[in-house]
Amino acid sequence: MAEAHRILVLHGPNLNLLGQREPEIYGRTTLAEIDAGLAAAAKGMQAEVECFQSNHEGVLVDRIQEAMGRRDGIVINPGAFTHTSVAIRDALAATDLPVVEVHLSNVFAREDFRHRSYVSGIALAVISGLGAGGYTAALQGLVAHLERPV
Amino acid sequence: MAEAHRILVLHGPNLNLLGQREPEIYGRTTLAEIDAGLAAAAKGMQAEVECFQSNHEGVLVDRIQEAMGRRDGIVINPGAFTHTSVAIRDALAATDLPVVEVHLSNVFAREDFRHRSYVSGIALAVISGLGAGGYTAALQGLVAHLERPV
Amino acid sequence: MAEAHRILVLHGPNLNLLGQREPEIYGRTTLAEIDAGLAAAAKGMQAEVECFQSNHEGVLVDRIQEAMGRRDGIVINPGAFTHTSVAIRDALAATDLPVVEVHLSNVFAREDFRHRSYVSGIALAVISGLGAGGYTAALQGLVAHLERPV
Amino acid sequence: MAEAHRILVLHGPNLNLLGQREPEIYGRTTLAEIDAGLAAAAKGMQAEVECFQSNHEGVLVDRIQEAMGRRDGIVINPGAFTHTSVAIRDALAATDLPVVEVHLSNVFAREDFRHRSYVSGIALAVISGLGAGGYTAALQGLVAHLERPV
Amino acid sequence: MAEAHRILVLHGPNLNLLGQREPEIYGRTTLAEIDAGLAAAAKGMQAEVECFQSNHEGVLVDRIQEAMGRRDGIVINPGAFTHTSVAIRDALAATDLPVVEVHLSNVFAREDFRHRSYVSGIALAVISGLGAGGYTAALQGLVAHLERPV
Amino acid sequence: MAEAHRILVLHGPNLNLLGQREPEIYGRTTLAEIDAGLAAAAKGMQAEVECFQSNHEGVLVDRIQEAMGRRDGIVINPGAFTHTSVAIRDALAATDLPVVEVHLSNVFAREDFRHRSYVSGIALAVISGLGAGGYTAALQGLVAHLERPV
Amino acid sequence: MAEAHRILVLHGPNLNLLGQREPEIYGRTTLAEIDAGLAAAAKGMQAEVECFQSNHEGVLVDRIQEAMGRRDGIVINPGAFTHTSVAIRDALAATDLPVVEVHLSNVFAREDFRHRSYVSGIALAVISGLGAGGYTAALQGLVAHLERPV
Amino acid sequence: MAEAHRILVLHGPNLNLLGQREPEIYGRTTLAEIDAGLAAAAKGMQAEVECFQSNHEGVLVDRIQEAMGRRDGIVINPGAFTHTSVAIRDALAATDLPVVEVHLSNVFAREDFRHRSYVSGIALAVISGLGAGGYTAALQGLVAHLERPV
Amino acid sequence: MAEAHRILVLHGPNLNLLGQREPEIYGRTTLAEIDAGLAAAAKGMQAEVECFQSNHEGVLVDRIQEAMGRRDGIVINPGAFTHTSVAIRDALAATDLPVVEVHLSNVFAREDFRHRSYVSGIALAVISGLGAGGYTAALQGLVAHLERPV
Amino acid sequence: MAEAHRILVLHGPNLNLLGQREPEIYGRTTLAEIDAGLAAAAKGMQAEVECFQSNHEGVLVDRIQEAMGRRDGIVINPGAFTHTSVAIRDALAATDLPVVEVHLSNVFAREDFRHRSYVSGIALAVISGLGAGGYTAALQGLVAHLERPV
Amino acid sequence: MAEAHRILVLHGPNLNLLGQREPEIYGRTTLAEIDAGLAAAAKGMQAEVECFQSNHEGVLVDRIQEAMGRRDGIVINPGAFTHTSVAIRDALAATDLPVVEVHLSNVFAREDFRHRSYVSGIALAVISGLGAGGYTAALQGLVAHLERPV
Amino acid sequence: MAEAHRILVLHGPNLNLLGQREPEIYGRTTLAEIDAGLAAAAKGMQAEVECFQSNHEGVLVDRIQEAMGRRDGIVINPGAFTHTSVAIRDALAATDLPVVEVHLSNVFAREDFRHRSYVSGIALAVISGLGAGGYTAALQGLVAHLERPV
Repeated sequence: MAEAHRILVLHGPNLNLLGQREPEIYGRTTLAEIDAGLAAAAKGMQAEVECFQSNHEGVLVDRIQEAMGRRDGIVINPGAFTHTSVAIRDALAATDLPVVEVHLSNVFAREDFRHRSYVSGIALAVISGLGAGGYTAALQGLVAHLERPV
Repeated sequence: MAEAHRILVLHGPNLNLLGQREPEIYGRTTLAEIDAGLAAAAKGMQAEVECFQSNHEGVLVDRIQEAMGRRDGIVINPGAFTHTSVAIRDALAATDLPVVEVHLSNVFAREDFRHRSYVSGIALAVISGLGAGGYTAALQGLVAHLERPV
Repeated sequence: MAEAHRILVLHGPNLNLLGQREPEIYGRTTLAEIDAGLAAAAKGMQAEVECFQSNHEGVLVDRIQEAMGRRDGIVINPGAFTHTSVAIRDALAATDLPVVEVHLSNVFAREDFRHRSYVSGIALAVISGLGAGGYTAALQGLVAHLERPV
Repeated sequence: MAEAHRILVLHGPNLNLLGQREPEIYGRTTLAEIDAGLAAAAKGMQAEVECFQSNHEGVLVDRIQEAMGRRDGIVINPGAFTHTSVAIRDALAATDLPVVEVHLSNVFAREDFRHRSYVSGIALAVISGLGAGGYTAALQGLVAHLERPV
Repeated sequence: MAEAHRILVLHGPNLNLLGQREPEIYGRTTLAEIDAGLAAAAKGMQAEVECFQSNHEGVLVDRIQEAMGRRDGIVINPGAFTHTSVAIRDALAATDLPVVEVHLSNVFAREDFRHRSYVSGIALAVISGLGAGGYTAALQGLVAHLERPV
Repeated sequence: MAEAHRILVLHGPNLNLLGQREPEIYGRTTLAEIDAGLAAAAKGMQAEVECFQSNHEGVLVDRIQEAMGRRDGIVINPGAFTHTSVAIRDALAATDLPVVEVHLSNVFAREDFRHRSYVSGIALAVISGLGAGGYTAALQGLVAHLERPV
Repeated sequence: MAEAHRILVLHGPNLNLLGQREPEIYGRTTLAEIDAGLAAAAKGMQAEVECFQSNHEGVLVDRIQEAMGRRDGIVINPGAFTHTSVAIRDALAATDLPVVEVHLSNVFAREDFRHRSYVSGIALAVISGLGAGGYTAALQGLVAHLERPV
Repeated sequence: MAEAHRILVLHGPNLNLLGQREPEIYGRTTLAEIDAGLAAAAKGMQAEVECFQSNHEGVLVDRIQEAMGRRDGIVINPGAFTHTSVAIRDALAATDLPVVEVHLSNVFAREDFRHRSYVSGIALAVISGLGAGGYTAALQGLVAHLERPV
Repeated sequence: MAEAHRILVLHGPNLNLLGQREPEIYGRTTLAEIDAGLAAAAKGMQAEVECFQSNHEGVLVDRIQEAMGRRDGIVINPGAFTHTSVAIRDALAATDLPVVEVHLSNVFAREDFRHRSYVSGIALAVISGLGAGGYTAALQGLVAHLERPV
Repeated sequence: MAEAHRILVLHGPNLNLLGQREPEIYGRTTLAEIDAGLAAAAKGMQAEVECFQSNHEGVLVDRIQEAMGRRDGIVINPGAFTHTSVAIRDALAATDLPVVEVHLSNVFAREDFRHRSYVSGIALAVISGLGAGGYTAALQGLVAHLERPV
Repeated sequence: MAEAHRILVLHGPNLNLLGQREPEIYGRTTLAEIDAGLAAAAKGMQAEVECFQSNHEGVLVDRIQEAMGRRDGIVINPGAFTHTSVAIRDALAATDLPVVEVHLSNVFAREDFRHRSYVSGIALAVISGLGAGGYTAALQGLVAHLERPV
Repeated sequence: MAEAHRILVLHGPNLNLLGQREPEIYGRTTLAEIDAGLAAAAKGMQAEVECFQSNHEGVLVDRIQEAMGRRDGIVINPGAFTHTSVAIRDALAATDLPVVEVHLSNVFAREDFRHRSYVSGIALAVISGLGAGGYTAALQGLVAHLERPV
C-alpha cells in the first residue's frame, strides 16, 4: 500500500487568536477546528498533516528545517511574517519541498504593504481569501502536485 | 429540491491555446478538458457551470454584464487582462456577484508587471499556481461561500 | 440659417448599466434618459447630438475615426478606458476635434489609479463629479467653444 | 417664495491679473467681467453670488470659514494654491458645504506638478478647461446639487 | 525666586474652529478652553503661556521670530502648515528654542500626505493623537527639558 | 525551389489614418501604399506578406494566434497597443515566431509613457523612427534572421 | 472604590541597554529607573503598570496576546521593531486595547528608514522625543483616554 | 541721458533675521547692510533698486504684481518659499520681467527638499552660494541682460 | 553627377571585441567584417562610410565634432556609452546631423539599466536587435532620409 | 605576553544548513568546518574566536549584547536578517565594537531586495562573495584593525 | 605686494563649440573670447586665470589634480559631465580648493536629467543662466571668498 | 613547477592621490606602497601582480581588454567609475576572468549614490572597508578561487 503524503501545516503569528479576533473578517472558526478539519480531510486524500502555530519567526524556521527529508510538502499561512520574513522564505526554499501559501482574507485586495509577500516568490501556489477553506484547497493542491507523474 | 448554483466561468485572452503553448509551464490539458472537468465537478457540488473564452475585452465585459441576475457567482482567469483591464474589474464589481480569480501559474512569484492585478481588488479570493486544479478549487470556494449562512 | 453643431457623445464600458449600478454614487438616471436629456438640451443650443455606448475599445475607436469631417466636437465619458486606453486618446487626437471629457463622480478625489486619465492630455476640458449634469455642461462648453470667434 | 441659494465664489492668487496675463491661454475677459457675468447668471437660477479674490492664503481661509452657516455652497478657483494649500482644503472641508473647483485651462493636461490638486480630494466636482464658462457651469452644478431632493 | 518659563503656544490654520468641526475626531473642546486649560496647568509648573492662533502662515512666522530672546520654548500645532510650510520650520529653527510639535489626532496613522511633517525635522519632540491632552503633555515635556541640568 | 518566407504584417489602432493624420510627423504615405510597397519589396526577398490593420485588440490577438504554424515571422507596429496590451505580447510570445516591432516615429525620444513597450520584451528587434522605411527594414531583418543557419 | 487601570508597558529590543548606550542621545536613566518611575507615577493616577522588556519579537507578541481581557491599555516603545514588525502591529490590533507608542528620541526627525512605523497605523497616539518623560506622558494620555466618558 | 534700470529686490521669509541667525552659514551681514550695498552698487551700473522683505507669501505676490510696467527686472531670494510657493512663481511669470533667483548658501548641495525650486523653472538665472555677493552678481547679470541688444 | 552621401559610422566601447565576446548573443562577425560590409553596401547607395571605434568617450566626442560640416549623417552604436554619456548626446546634437542609433541585441527587452538611452532622445531613429544587419538598415534609413525632398 | 583578540563570530538563520543547501552556490563546506577553520586561523593571528549560529533574531541580539566588554570585535554573516533586522543593527551599534559583515555569495550582484543591508550602515567593512574564505578575510581585517595604532 | 590669486578655469565637453552651436541659447561669443574676457577681468581683481577645455573626463581629472598646491581656486563649467562624472567631483573635492560651478543657460529650469549635478554637492557656489557673464561672476565670487578674513 | 597566477590590479580615478587626500578616511599609505605590498604578498601565494592606475575610463577599458588571455584574474578598485561606468563593467564581463571589486572605505554604509555599483553585478566578490588590506584579501580570494578544483 502506498505511503501517506506527509504534509506540514504552519500557522504564523496571531493565528492562534482565530475565532476571537475580528470574526467579521476571519470568521468564528478556531485554529483547533481548522487543524481538526484538515486532519479529517487529509484522511480522504491519503495524506497526513502535522499542524503547528508559533508567534516566533525563529521557531517557524526551525520547524521548516526539520521538515527536510521528513515531509513531502508544506502548507503555510505566514501571517504577518508574509511581509517581513526573508528567513522563512529562505528556510522554505532550502527544504526544496513544494509550498502552498494560504491567507484567510484576500490580501491582494489591500492597497498597503500587505499585498507584498516574500513567500510568494518561492511558493508553488498562493490561495488568498477562501477563509478556512483555503487550507483544504491548499492540501488538495499539494497532494495533486505530489501525485502528478513527473 | 434546492436549485443548483449557477456559476459563470470566464477565460481571458490566449487561454484558448492551453495545452499547446509552453506545456512545461501550463501543462498539456486543453481548455476544453478543463471545462469538461469543471462541468463534472460542478455536478457533485449542486452547481452548474457555463464556460466561455474570449480574446476580446469588450466581449468579456458584455458576458459579465449578462450574468447580472442570471448567475450566482463568477470564476475568472483574466489572463493578460488581469494586468490591464479596468473595464473587466468594473463590470465584475457592477454585478455584485462573488468573484474568484484564478491563475494557472503563480503570478505572484513574478518580479515584473504580472504580479499586479486589477481584478484582485474586487475579488472574494485569488488562487494562483494550482494549474487546472485552481479552477476546481475556485468552484468549491465559491459554492462554499454561497452556501455559508448569512 | 446657420447649421447646427454636430456633436458626438460617447459613453465607455459599463455606462449602459447606469441607473442600475451603485445608484447612491451614480444616481438613478439611466443612460437612455441622459441621452434624451442631451438631445433636448442640444435643441436649445443650435446643436444636435448623436449618442453611442460601447464596452469595446475598438468599436469606440472606430466611431471616433468616423467622426472626422462629419462632427464638430466630441463629448466623451471614457469610463474605465479613461485609465487604460491610449488608442482612444490617439483616435481623439487624430480627429483634431475639440473634446470634452466627462465623469459622473469626481475621479480626481480618488487616491488610486482612477485619478490618472490618458484622455485629459488631449482634451479641451474635463468635467468630473457633476453627475448627469456634467454632460449638459460639456455640451454647453463645446458649443461655446465652437461659437467663439477665432 | 423660496430663498435664493447663497454662493461664495473665490478666486486664488494672480487671478486678479486675468485679461492681462497670457491672453492666448486665459482669454481677454477680466475678473470683474467674470464676476459680473456670474451675478447675472445667478439671477436666472434663483441664486446670488458673492465674489472675492485674494493673493493671500490666510485671507482665503478666513473667508471660507466665514461662509459656515452663511453660504450654501462654494465655487473656488484656487489658482496656485490648488497645488500647495492644505489649509484651504481643510477650511473647505470644515465648512461642510458643497464645493466646485474650477480651472480656466485644463490643468489635467499638464505633465508637471500642476495636475495634482489638494482641493479635488474634498470637492463635489471639478471643472477644468472651459475658460470663464467654467464658473457658470460650476454655479449651475452647485445649484442643481442644492435643489436635488435628498 | 526663580522666574517662570515663558512658553509660546501656537495654533495653525482652522484650529480656531475646534469644537465645531468634526467633533467625533477632534472632540468638543474649543480652542479657548484648551488655552485656558494650558494657562491653568502652566501655573502648576512654574510656567506661563501665551497662546495665539492664525490662519496666516506669515503671521505665524512673525510671531515665532518675535519669540527670539523673549520666550523659553514653543509648543506648536501647525495644523495644515505641518505639511506645507518650510517658512515656519525655518523660523522655528532660527529661534534656537526647544519646540514641541502637537497634533490632536494621530497623523502618523494616515496613509496620505498628512504623515509628512516639515516641523518634525527641527522639533525636540512630537506628540500626536492625545487630543487636547497633547498640549499639556507638550508643556510638561518642554518644562522638563528646560529644567534638565545641562 | 525554396518556398517563400510567409510574413504577417500587423498594424495597430489608428494606423488606418496614415497619410491623413499629422503628415508632418508621419508623412503622406497611406497604409495601402505601405502595404503595396512591402508586397513589392517582399518579392525581391523570396518572401510574401499578408498585411492587416485593426483598431481592435482582440481582433489582432485572434490574427496573431492564427499565424501559428501558418507564418514564419511577424512584423508588427502595435500603435497605441504598444504601451497597453499584454494580450498582444502574450499572443506573440505564444506563436514562438520571430517578431520585429516597428514604429514610424522615434518613440524612444519621448519622455512620456510612449517610451515603454510591452512588445519589446518579447521581440527579436525594434525599429523606431525610420518612417515607412522601417517596415522594409523589418522585413529584411526578419528574412535575414530566417535564412541565418541555425 | 473604582478599580485601578491595568496598563502593560512594553520595551522592545536593546532598550535593556538604556543608560549605557549613547547616553548623549538616550540619557543616563536605566530601564529599571524608568519602570520604577512609571510605577510611582501610576499610583497617583489610579493605575498600575506591569513593565516588560524583550529582544525577541515573538516573546513580545505572546505578551501582547496575554494582555487581552487582562489589561486596559498598552504603552509600547517597540524600539527597532517599530520599523520591521507587522506581527507586533497585528497583535496590538487584535487586543482591541488603546495603545500609545513611545520613542525616546524624535524618530520623525530622521531622514532614513526610522521615520516609518508599522505601529503608528494602529496606535491611539504617538509620543516621540520626550526621553523617559515620554512614558509618563503616555501613561497619562492612556488613563485620560480610559476615563473619558464614551 | 538714458534712464536708470529699475530693479525690484525681494527677500523672502526669515531673511530679516540675517546676521543674527547661524552666522557661520549666512555670515554677519544684516539685510539692511545688503540692501545698502546693493543701492551703492546699483549707482555704478546706471540702475536703481527698491528692496523689500516679507514673511508673507501674499504680500510678496502683491509686490511682484505691482512691479508690472513699473520695474525692468526682479532679483529675488525666495527663502523658504523657493520650495513651496507656486503663487510666487506664477506672479513672477505673469510680470514677464527677467528674474534672477539668489540663495545665500549653496542650496544645490543639499540632499533634502531644499534642492528643489519652483522659481528656477521661470528664472533667467540662479546664483546660489555666493553669500551677500550673490545679490550684486544678480544685479550685474540683470543689468547686462537688459542692456544686451535684442 | 551627384556627390556621395558621407556617413560617419561610430562604434563605442568594447565593440572592437565583436566576434570574440559572447558570440551566442552578438554573433561571430568581427567589427572589421561589419565595416567592410558597410563599405560595400554604401557603394550601392551612392554613399561612402568612414568607420571608427573607440573605448574613450572623449575620443568619440572629438570625432563627432569633426563631422560638423564634413559629414552628412551619423550611424552610431554607442555601446555602454548609450546609458552613461551625456557628452556624446550633446556632441551629436551639436552637429545638427541626422543620427541613427544601432544596437546589435534588443536592448529594449532588458529589464535593467540598459533599456535607457541618452542618445535616443536626439536620434532620428533607433534600430535594436538586428545584429550586424542593423548597421546596413541604419545606413539605408539615413540615405533615404537625406534623399527625401524637403 | 599580549592578550589574544577575542572575536565573536555570528551566523544568521539557515546557515546551519551549509553544505546541504544549494552546494553549487554555497559550496559543500559545513558550518562546523568553517568554524573549525576559523579557530585554526585565529591561532596564527593571536586571536581566539567564539562561533555561534541561530535562526532566532532575538537570540542573536542577546548574544551581541553579551559581547559588550567581553569581546574585541564581531564577524557576522546575518543571513536573511541582513535585509530585515534593525534590531541586530542596533545591537551591533550599541556594542561599539568593530563589525565585519560577511556574505558567502556576492549579494551585491542581486537585483532584488537582497542587495540592501541594514548591517552595512554600521559595519567597518563588508566582504561578499568569497565563500568560506570571506570569514578568514574578515577575521584578518578585524585583527589588523585592532592592531592598527590609534 | 600681495600675490595674485591663481584661478584655474575649466570648460567641459562641447564647450569648444561655443558661438557655433545653438547661438540663440548660448550666444555668439566663442570660448576664446570668454577666456580673453576672463583674463582681462582677472587683472582688475589681482587675479590671474589659466583656462582649459577638454572633451575628455580623464584629462579634466588630471588637470584638476595638478591644481593641488598650485592654484587658489577653480571655476568649472562641467558641461555634460555635470550630470555624469563622479570622478570630476572627487578630484575637485580632493584638491580642497574652493570651486564655483558655472552653467551658461539655466539648467535648473530643466525638467529632465540636466537639473541634477554631481558637482554642486561639493561646490562653494553655483551660477546658472548668466551666459558668459556667469564666468566673470564666478571669478569675482571666488576672489571675494579668498579675500574674506578667516 | 606550476606557473604563477597572473593578476591584474587596477586602480580608478583619483586613487593616485592616496595618502594625500583625506588621510583620516583613506589612511596615509600611498598607492605605490599598496602596490609594493601587493607584489610582496603575491610572492607568497605563487602569484604575480601587475598594478596600474588611471584617471581615464577609456584607458582602463583598454587595459582590461588587453588582459584577455594574458591574465588569470583582476582586482579592481574602480573609484568613482564604480558608480558611472558601464563600459568598464562590460569590458570586465568580456574578459570572462574572475573579478574582485575593492573599496578602501565601506561604500555600502553610504546613503547616497555611492552605494550603487555597476561592477558588483559581474564581480565574483566585493570587499569594502578594509582599507589597503582589502587588496590583499582580494588577491587571496582570487588565488583561492583559481586554485579551487572545478
